[in-house]
Amino acid sequence: MTVPAPRPTLEAVAAHAGVSRATVSRVVNGAAGVRAEVTERVLASVAALGYVPNRAARSLVTRRTGAVAVVIAEPETRVFSDPFFARQLRGISRELARHDTQLLLLLSESRADQGRVGRYLSGGHVDGALMFSLHGEDPLPSMAAASGLPTVFGGRPGWEGAEEDPQLCYVDTDNRGGARLAVEHLRERGRRRVAVITGPLDMTGAQDRLAGYRDALGVTEADPALVACGDYTAEGGERAMAELLARSPGLDAVFACSDLMAFGALRTLRAAGRRVPQDVAVVGYDDLPPGAWPEPALTTVRQDVEEMGSLMARMLLRRLGVAEAEDGSGAPPASVITEARLIVRATT
Amino acid sequence: MTVPAPRPTLEAVAAHAGVSRATVSRVVNGAAGVRAEVTERVLASVAALGYVPNRAARSLVTRRTGAVAVVIAEPETRVFSDPFFARQLRGISRELARHDTQLLLLLSESRADQGRVGRYLSGGHVDGALMFSLHGEDPLPSMAAASGLPTVFGGRPGWEGAEEDPQLCYVDTDNRGGARLAVEHLRERGRRRVAVITGPLDMTGAQDRLAGYRDALGVTEADPALVACGDYTAEGGERAMAELLARSPGLDAVFACSDLMAFGALRTLRAAGRRVPQDVAVVGYDDLPPGAWPEPALTTVRQDVEEMGSLMARMLLRRLGVAEAEDGSGAPPASVITEARLIVRATT
Repeated sequence: MTVPAPRPTLEAVAAHAGVSRATVSRVVNGAAGVRAEVTERVLASVAALGYVPNRAARSLVTRRTGAVAVVIAEPETRVFSDPFFARQLRGISRELARHDTQLLLLLSESRADQGRVGRYLSGGHVDGALMFSLHGEDPLPSMAAASGLPTVFGGRPGWEGAEEDPQLCYVDTDNRGGARLAVEHLRERGRRRVAVITGPLDMTGAQDRLAGYRDALGVTEADPALVACGDYTAEGGERAMAELLARSPGLDAVFACSDLMAFGALRTLRAAGRRVPQDVAVVGYDDLPPGAWPEPALTTVRQDVEEMGSLMARMLLRRLGVAEAEDGSGAPPASVITEARLIVRATT
Repeated sequence: MTVPAPRPTLEAVAAHAGVSRATVSRVVNGAAGVRAEVTERVLASVAALGYVPNRAARSLVTRRTGAVAVVIAEPETRVFSDPFFARQLRGISRELARHDTQLLLLLSESRADQGRVGRYLSGGHVDGALMFSLHGEDPLPSMAAASGLPTVFGGRPGWEGAEEDPQLCYVDTDNRGGARLAVEHLRERGRRRVAVITGPLDMTGAQDRLAGYRDALGVTEADPALVACGDYTAEGGERAMAELLARSPGLDAVFACSDLMAFGALRTLRAAGRRVPQDVAVVGYDDLPPGAWPEPALTTVRQDVEEMGSLMARMLLRRLGVAEAEDGSGAPPASVITEARLIVRATT
């Protein structure tokens, strides 16, 4: 067992920096009116001595931990390979850092993970939570609700009763409208056999994009020969495209519900000798940053993922009383649906 | 403000699942001897009602939070673009999950982040910490030590007094030996002007790889015209390679201290019309998984990053008394240096 070293005191920091206790207190509590060089000296002493302000004592008064959990219901392999998550987290962490709030990232994949994450969230270790990439019957939202933890969701919640819950707060993009734009664009390009590669259909975003595909085609049921399910990964897109070519060799366009799946589909089309866009036009969804991605440049639907992350964080900080409404109204935050926009490039 | 809903009780779960309270208790505490179908039914009721076992009450007795912080001293952009981190985290999370311990990921880039992370770590919200990718004078290790938080480090700690601290525990790979293998291999291939692209030299791993380069060349000081500093990213490698070509046009080999930097160097060499390996041989470091990476296949030094993550987690769990020594000895965990191995492919 490690034996805890004695904790350095405020006095020790003051002596080390050669300033008063009041000055140290002002610096560590972020108060204004301390000269930059003095602040620098105090912070150097704080670091040298390993001083930690007594946040625990403060949080007994404020009942705040100063931390927010970000829960992503995906395995590490996906979170660390799909740039979507990095961008959303960048938006979130920028906003939390502005309000000196610590971001804790928790991944939850299996049922065992869900139980463990739920216990941590309800253990008083965080002030609130942001949850995204939820699938189907994930118990975490109800666990968070049961423990009274303020929570903001990324993506339209799909569980029963969610739409009627006046407390429920989420940020989503207009998935249905974005998908409609993509497929209408393919129709305008004269394509008649438009296939779709969906995301996991236990996620509302994937359901909504499929609904947008149906809207644009003016049907209430999609032709099963033109629908294949993917999992938002490039490998999934590759497999789904192969399935579609086998079932519907005459298809002349495909709408892939994520850019990574579109990249996979392009690989399959190339291997099958189909020219893009002459034989098969391809539209993706996300508008991933360029550079790492293969030619040809992908026509896609842009959603501002980083901004969605920031919005989620701002909403939660308002719920927690840490940030104010931008219009100063003090009104409770309401859910937001951000716009989706078609970006036409070389694959259509 | 949200009004907390009443918390569902153990009794409510028992009634919902049609089993006894004792059975529910056994299931939620992970005890053995409950039939699979009963476990399934209880877990379904737990999920349906949003029941959360009273871990807080339990942790008052055990003084455990059941959570471990993983602190990476890098910005999101790096953590989410360099596969190194995903692999290390996979190793860590697999091991923590086996012991029902929650992983919290905290990133720390700026001085403000360090202060905030330090406060969270010392606030009693975690049982221990794993820290890696530390740079130079990061105050987090001393903050963790001051608060008595059991910590295991990834990479040889570089701060003063670290080597003499008997409590200090870390996992590293043999960076110096690995670099020596790489450069000796280039010498054996007849290369006479071997350049090096280093990592950030405020990190011990980067220092050690540079030392291995000097060892292999039998010098105590490297020729400055053959040394360029990178930052472990592909863009950094691209820039560093351009610098080296400008300073030492006659170079015939380069050792890049990470695979991503080697990929960047390959890009610069291609643009400059140098053939690999005929004109310039290239060795990387890491052995990233193949697939996403460009041709030609890279000669590199393999370090088992996932296993290093697992080792760090196991050490910490032993310190916490959650896991036992593999040999059953009960001996305190000691630091481990894992082997590095040369993998010869097409670039040398």
